[in-house]
Amino acid sequence: MIDKLTEKIKKTGAPIVVGLDPMPDYLPPHLLEAAVSARGESLEAAADAVFAYNRGIVDAVCDLIPAVKPQIAMYEQFGLPGLEAFKKTVDYCHEKDLLVIGDVKRGDIGSTSAAYAAAHLGTIAVGGRKFTPFGEDFATVNPYLGSDGIQPFIDVCKEEKKGIFVLVKTSNPSSGEFQDRMITEDGRSCPLYEYVGRMVEQWGSSCMGKTFSYVGAVVGATYPEMGRILRELMPNACILVPGYGAQGGKGADLVPFFRRDGLGAIVNSSRGIIAAYRQERYKEMGMTDQNYADAARMAVLEMKEDIAQALA
Amino acid sequence: MIDKLTEKIKKTGAPIVVGLDPMPDYLPPHLLEAAVSARGESLEAAADAVFAYNRGIVDAVCDLIPAVKPQIAMYEQFGLPGLEAFKKTVDYCHEKDLLVIGDVKRGDIGSTSAAYAAAHLGTIAVGGRKFTPFGEDFATVNPYLGSDGIQPFIDVCKEEKKGIFVLVKTSNPSSGEFQDRMITEDGRSCPLYEYVGRMVEQWGSSCMGKTFSYVGAVVGATYPEMGRILRELMPNACILVPGYGAQGGKGADLVPFFRRDGLGAIVNSSRGIIAAYRQERYKEMGMTDQNYADAARMAVLEMKEDIAQALA
Repeated sequence: MIDKLTEKIKKTGAPIVVGLDPMPDYLPPHLLEAAVSARGESLEAAADAVFAYNRGIVDAVCDLIPAVKPQIAMYEQFGLPGLEAFKKTVDYCHEKDLLVIGDVKRGDIGSTSAAYAAAHLGTIAVGGRKFTPFGEDFATVNPYLGSDGIQPFIDVCKEEKKGIFVLVKTSNPSSGEFQDRMITEDGRSCPLYEYVGRMVEQWGSSCMGKTFSYVGAVVGATYPEMGRILRELMPNACILVPGYGAQGGKGADLVPFFRRDGLGAIVNSSRGIIAAYRQERYKEMGMTDQNYADAARMAVLEMKEDIAQALA
Repeated sequence: MIDKLTEKIKKTGAPIVVGLDPMPDYLPPHLLEAAVSARGESLEAAADAVFAYNRGIVDAVCDLIPAVKPQIAMYEQFGLPGLEAFKKTVDYCHEKDLLVIGDVKRGDIGSTSAAYAAAHLGTIAVGGRKFTPFGEDFATVNPYLGSDGIQPFIDVCKEEKKGIFVLVKTSNPSSGEFQDRMITEDGRSCPLYEYVGRMVEQWGSSCMGKTFSYVGAVVGATYPEMGRILRELMPNACILVPGYGAQGGKGADLVPFFRRDGLGAIVNSSRGIIAAYRQERYKEMGMTDQNYADAARMAVLEMKEDIAQALA
């Protein structure tokens, strides 16, 4: 799947993933009103509005980008109907030939990670039949429990030709609290995130695709200097870069995450694209919640240009 | 809720939480066969069998214990029907007056953690109405992203009088890979898990119940020496202790996790109870998959006795 992702990035010229993170605030009011008219004030109505919102975005941008990244928390907060909208979103994106990175940040002891891996990347047998529970192409994974929490994901990745992105250095302000702590490794001192990065490279060595391994890393756009170091430490890892746009990362900040050939990173933007219609500059262009999808398309095109200029 | 948990532990005399982790292997075959007869080989059938299994266990042990801990991964692997069984299990346990610790190990950047907190411990508004997505009483949380990934959970805990257990030192063999790394903190060296433990104590200081704070910690029974240190470092934290039984922890290993008054820890056993019917010693007593719930009850009583003797 990492090969397919790399191919699609080359083909679209857009190392961009759109974060389908339907925060309640972002939902265009007319979509929620329509859903509530049909089903009353209910979790089902919210979930319908979420899926309609996503479908509008996906239809508007699917020819421009290789992948989307739905953040499952935004669906889980709407309970079972929300998770049904998550599953429908994954399936709809596949229909539109988009790769899907499930931003699930799961991770647990071995047997439990195996269950999460089956849920998001694999299959599960019931009697003589096999089922695909959620069916994403990639999942994000939390490394705090160490190798035996990661290995079951790798096992499923090998079997199903899927991939994971392991949290190395996250984009949020307090990510340094634990991740930046200096530790001693092989007699020399380094921050914890560097050690996690080295482990990502090691985990990935057993499952190489054509150019990158099945084991990628998450490194926030908000920390470009750390990105530069991690890019070197993990030559075989594709880096998923959140934090561009609304979280503060800019095009120029992204350069260190890429290899010299312009590959090796894929940049996520969520709010900056799916809620572009709420920004002053798009409003001035006549964008409203009614044509939120047009605003999203314009925001993707501008992001693509911003990255291309930075990498030129 | 932490006060209620403490009261229930005192009342039952059992600082025990039963892990409702229905691994496919543990499912008594007759339950799956009955469900498949009714609904065909399907995720729905598996989910029905899971719920029937849980109901049998809960009915058999609910008078003996204060709380259960369903591991959501074991439900998520059965897709949407599995998560419906999770929700039904939470509701059923509440009917039986059991507290529910959602073992979800969520954790993300602030806005995303807020969504997870709403999903598992809080409510969500749709128009003018509020809904409870999953409605557990406690949730386990991963600290790798630092304070701003934890704070939204604490905010919801304060509002809803719920609680969290933060992963500090997990029970699995490779937990030391990152958690045991020596870091420098205030000029002195300590392992990362100790620093996380201190942060747990600090996070909890803003939300104290009568005896313990709303912010507890997860520390594996498999590491009793570390448990002793963490018990001292986190005087206000209730410690959730997984790893007893099948993972190798024994009654005597549990002593360091408790305060001198016998409070301050709650010990989880999953496989050792819900799959007791598969163990040789229970088989010899005539336990089979048909009376798996009786075996579970006997295993709880023996665990209670084992802990009581160790603490005596």
